[in-house]
Amino acid sequence: MSSKLIGKQTFALWNPPSFAGHACAVGKKEGDGPLRDSFDFITQDPFFGEKSWEKAESAFVKKAVSLALAKASLAPTDVNCVFCGDLLNQCTGTTFGMRELGIPMFGVYGACSTMAETLALAALTIDGGFTDKAMAVTSSHFCSAERQFRTPLEYGGQRPPSAQWTVTGSGAAILSIDGPGPYVKFVTPGKIVDNGTTDANHMGAAMATAAYDTIKTHLEDRGVGPDAYDLIVTGDLGAIGSRILCDFFAADGVDLAPRHADCGLLIFDRKKQDVHAGGSGCGCSASVLCGYLLNGMREGKWRNILFTATGALLSPTTTQQGESIPSIACAVAISCDK
Amino acid sequence: MSSKLIGKQTFALWNPPSFAGHACAVGKKEGDGPLRDSFDFITQDPFFGEKSWEKAESAFVKKAVSLALAKASLAPTDVNCVFCGDLLNQCTGTTFGMRELGIPMFGVYGACSTMAETLALAALTIDGGFTDKAMAVTSSHFCSAERQFRTPLEYGGQRPPSAQWTVTGSGAAILSIDGPGPYVKFVTPGKIVDNGTTDANHMGAAMATAAYDTIKTHLEDRGVGPDAYDLIVTGDLGAIGSRILCDFFAADGVDLAPRHADCGLLIFDRKKQDVHAGGSGCGCSASVLCGYLLNGMREGKWRNILFTATGALLSPTTTQQGESIPSIACAVAISCDK
Repeated sequence: MSSKLIGKQTFALWNPPSFAGHACAVGKKEGDGPLRDSFDFITQDPFFGEKSWEKAESAFVKKAVSLALAKASLAPTDVNCVFCGDLLNQCTGTTFGMRELGIPMFGVYGACSTMAETLALAALTIDGGFTDKAMAVTSSHFCSAERQFRTPLEYGGQRPPSAQWTVTGSGAAILSIDGPGPYVKFVTPGKIVDNGTTDANHMGAAMATAAYDTIKTHLEDRGVGPDAYDLIVTGDLGAIGSRILCDFFAADGVDLAPRHADCGLLIFDRKKQDVHAGGSGCGCSASVLCGYLLNGMREGKWRNILFTATGALLSPTTTQQGESIPSIACAVAISCDK
Repeated sequence: MSSKLIGKQTFALWNPPSFAGHACAVGKKEGDGPLRDSFDFITQDPFFGEKSWEKAESAFVKKAVSLALAKASLAPTDVNCVFCGDLLNQCTGTTFGMRELGIPMFGVYGACSTMAETLALAALTIDGGFTDKAMAVTSSHFCSAERQFRTPLEYGGQRPPSAQWTVTGSGAAILSIDGPGPYVKFVTPGKIVDNGTTDANHMGAAMATAAYDTIKTHLEDRGVGPDAYDLIVTGDLGAIGSRILCDFFAADGVDLAPRHADCGLLIFDRKKQDVHAGGSGCGCSASVLCGYLLNGMREGKWRNILFTATGALLSPTTTQQGESIPSIACAVAISCDK
């Protein structure tokens, strides 16, 4: 058996890659939220100077990538490959955002788990000895996501309290074979989990089971408890999904709550901002990771984080055809210690 | 610099993984074509017993995967991870096809380049020491693709001669850390290339530039000519794209034509079957690779193949917004020699 595979499905990285640069660019609502000081760039214009929301989403990608490159003092040609993807049909948010850069690309689709998936693959590619520098990028945009997945904004549809607010923003992280950290130490890809949820306005409930499965497997594979991490942070379970996740662990006799945080709950102030159950979208966990979380690790706030982004693998077509919502969660363990 | 990175963007695999099992399942039209004897399974029913074309596409995935597992004498739990993706919005063709299997999954989006991309990532994961067994899977379906990308079939839209026919089928390949071959020796991920083509019924022209860029880079990175391969096979350039590709090489003084083949031209008989410029879709290169090509290598027909699948990274939305068609090509060198 491969010696880097520990337990059932966790990969241990023997030469943990270091973050060389990371940046995020977000929209107005995110800039009005509690994490405003952690974002590298905030625009007040939802169109970001473009003519459509889809083009705006690509502009967020360009901005995040160029800022991450600048912070790492790298040119695009210094990066050997990029892993990227987003929520738009055919992942055009990131494709068109990366178009001019000329970096060899692997397109990825993991719904809202994409930031963890791209980061995982970038890390594996470096630890596997294939590249020295690899990038992970993702994005989402409230307006492009609403009209694609739900109804056009002009329709003014009502949203139930369990619905979440897609974050407008992009995050980019560059990993390098050497550097001062933080480091990617472990990767646990997720299995598809389907608990039968059919309500596309109740994603947190669908994804909580996937988060539970991946986090539980990761801890078992490593033979540790939640206290191995200062923070176990999910992508966008929101208020309801987060409670379900903690309930699942409580049923196992494990108190996850004190160490658990959710990017969807961190990014907005639900008392002051009208986002229902919290933030969501690939851009949510991406901009929280590439700002607040990695900055916090550098500042000594946390030494070990388990970044677990979750994705709901549905489409409007599968929902119309009466299908339930398969979900997945990918976990990436990030540490200040090599 | 990483020693497995040769030249600009080619990864050399030091412990080339072997194909352990591969299978394909296709529809009626493919079964009527010249490669009929190479397919593991042919159904006459475009619905494959399901109630929608999307569900049928997932049924093709299930069939190809179960046949590949059976040929490799493996259970799903023996496979450490799967890389999969398809053309449907949010890649639901493969997601729903893989749902019950419980294999840790990395979702991928590379349009019609997906079979090469999934195969490349599965190979890197094994050579990188993370897994012993990894699977690559993709699919497409003529009816689900037409209604999503162009017009519903009931509309009876006319198609220009440059249009291609999306293959109905799925291919699955399982790679293993050891085995009798054929082996994956090199991987060259592609850069996004955009030559300004805007006609969504002229994909071959858009993708030919990407194929040229990746194949040329691969040969330069390895320091070899086309004669290093018995066959340089593109995914689905079709008749027009294939001619453009050979023209590009001819302008460099390189005669690619005698060694070039295209899965989109191999799978149908354009004289007898009404497919315009040839076959296309992820399922095209997947079912030709997992049947005709790998069987041919086992039979001694070819010892070295450069499998280069190409993808057009557009969406109906980007086309409606007047965007051109970015393309990408991923190359995987497969050899009978370790």
